[in-house]
Amino acid sequence: MEKINVDLGLRSYPIYIGHSLLEKVNAWLPTISGRQILIVTNETIAPLYLKHLQNALQNYQCETLILPDGEQHKTLATLNLIFDKLLAHRFDRSATLLALGGGVIGDITGFAAATYRRGIAFCQFPTTLLAQVDAAIGGKTAVNHPLGKNMIGAFHQPKCVVIDLELLKTLPKREYYAGLAEIVKYALLGDATLFDYLEKNVEKILAYDQSALQHIITVSCQMKARIVSHDETEQGERALLNLGHTFGHVIETATHYKIWLHGEAVAMGLVMAARLSFLQGWITKHDVERIELLLKQYHLPTERPAEIGGENFYNLMTYDKKVLDHQLRLILLKSIGQAVISKDYSADNLRLILGIKPGVHHEHCEHKQK
Amino acid sequence: MEKINVDLGLRSYPIYIGHSLLEKVNAWLPTISGRQILIVTNETIAPLYLKHLQNALQNYQCETLILPDGEQHKTLATLNLIFDKLLAHRFDRSATLLALGGGVIGDITGFAAATYRRGIAFCQFPTTLLAQVDAAIGGKTAVNHPLGKNMIGAFHQPKCVVIDLELLKTLPKREYYAGLAEIVKYALLGDATLFDYLEKNVEKILAYDQSALQHIITVSCQMKARIVSHDETEQGERALLNLGHTFGHVIETATHYKIWLHGEAVAMGLVMAARLSFLQGWITKHDVERIELLLKQYHLPTERPAEIGGENFYNLMTYDKKVLDHQLRLILLKSIGQAVISKDYSADNLRLILGIKPGVHHEHCEHKQK
Repeated sequence: MEKINVDLGLRSYPIYIGHSLLEKVNAWLPTISGRQILIVTNETIAPLYLKHLQNALQNYQCETLILPDGEQHKTLATLNLIFDKLLAHRFDRSATLLALGGGVIGDITGFAAATYRRGIAFCQFPTTLLAQVDAAIGGKTAVNHPLGKNMIGAFHQPKCVVIDLELLKTLPKREYYAGLAEIVKYALLGDATLFDYLEKNVEKILAYDQSALQHIITVSCQMKARIVSHDETEQGERALLNLGHTFGHVIETATHYKIWLHGEAVAMGLVMAARLSFLQGWITKHDVERIELLLKQYHLPTERPAEIGGENFYNLMTYDKKVLDHQLRLILLKSIGQAVISKDYSADNLRLILGIKPGVHHEHCEHKQK
Repeated sequence: MEKINVDLGLRSYPIYIGHSLLEKVNAWLPTISGRQILIVTNETIAPLYLKHLQNALQNYQCETLILPDGEQHKTLATLNLIFDKLLAHRFDRSATLLALGGGVIGDITGFAAATYRRGIAFCQFPTTLLAQVDAAIGGKTAVNHPLGKNMIGAFHQPKCVVIDLELLKTLPKREYYAGLAEIVKYALLGDATLFDYLEKNVEKILAYDQSALQHIITVSCQMKARIVSHDETEQGERALLNLGHTFGHVIETATHYKIWLHGEAVAMGLVMAARLSFLQGWITKHDVERIELLLKQYHLPTERPAEIGGENFYNLMTYDKKVLDHQLRLILLKSIGQAVISKDYSADNLRLILGIKPGVHHEHCEHKQK
């Protein structure tokens, strides 16, 4: 078992990574104080793993809440179901929520913990690769609003994150690949060695080789923990973790979260960020090709969905929450292994990678003014 | 104009107290950064004072949202109206919310600020005496749930609190009296001199004498600022501010927030806390009489509503959020001017002040177990 510390002073917490950790309760049980626990999970995960956690918690007042599965349920209305349950069972401020599921369950459970009686404890038990290496770490909690993803939320750190590698065996392959997109993201933004490793171990990783998995998950979690420690509330450096996400969110929003998985949209976003970085002259054509090839090997998309037109895509980007004072910052690449937060890119280049011919946008505006 | 600092390190902020401060923008305008402002107010306050604020903010992108008036609208559904407005106008993370209203507007606007894009700035412009001396200060934000008041919320400090004494002239008398209950609370829990002042200046205060008002509001805000500075998230000392509130919340809940104003319920709660403290032998009969007389002089209730039976009252108290690990802590008096957080009271005495005969509750339980 690996243990990584997320160093945040009084809010520091451990990430445990290993096999069958749901059952190995001695590692994580001491991080829970109080006697009241609510396990929040979904209808897909509950039949597989809920019993594992319940068995570990027989000495607690342990309640469970099984939510419908899917991003479309990450809403204020679903959040209220958690509050209903907590209040129906008179849970007090010493209670702990356990989030057993993917990013949706983690985000909504974390937000419930952030706001129930103005803040109670919670622990993350991520069941998808994507949640294990990204969503479960760092205290970003949220629900969606019809006009934007994660628009309502809070920073609220968990008491621990328990990553059980066994759980990946029941994860649908497509979701596994989507999780790998986030690992490619870490490699691109800060670890060229990890990128090499991902290139050289494609077969092992696709075959769920346990030591390869433990390695790439541990390295990813270490990077996320380090960045979060430096910049908990995303005043600066933490925005690097959004590499590929500004583009990706547009794809998710435009397709109503129904066609692309988050990781797939991020993969596409990584390609778009790479292409823009190449047009800026910051990385080489060969770099872009390496990135595209790697993503293809992991069964991830490298071409934008045709149904989102370039102009439409461009307009939707301004709705994204990474917009600050109406100036769009993007995370771009200076090399494989080094990302920057930048406004110093050419708008024409951005339009070019969106398939908009140079000047078309300007002419359109002038025409309207006449 | 008085200026009080709430000392919370990086989250410190000023409270301004004076006349016509809505128009005296030079005092508070510098605390607003960014160009986007949403004023949240209600249908009672908007016709009276919204223009004052709008006039001060002509150089900003200033939007307004007018909510229905009343505690019954302090819900997740109303909160979502604020998010709708912010997203419809593409407000970014640099935006500021201004809460222009009483405790309901302050609490819900503050909670919207705490959770919109994981936290943006807000300022408090309290329009009721109760909000001026209590709700607007200290960063407690929340909405209600059908099973409990303020069950969903966050600690989120404002950037400034602007207390305009002029606003009290249009406040209904009954609400003015209710605000005085919170000032009596401050006197009881920590300032015997203030209690004397409140006794000696009844006529002036009831006549809205401006220097008397400025004095009692400033002293109250100073006490709240000091306690919040010591204990921002209510781990200990801050609970003293709940003097009268555990009892008061039961009255509000049982009457569905429709009959008693919050301050009136608190006044009744102060009397009940005083009576229990007397039964414990901690304060004298004369102290209780002084407290009851003072509240009566300020047109505040000193007798419990007959429609809430003693047993019912007792059971409802365990639903209150001040319950920690199922042991009910109460804020009680050691003297006029000194409160304590205590579990060292006799349950029989508590039942006695609720009108339950000693032993009845126990017998009932034994009977059920047979």
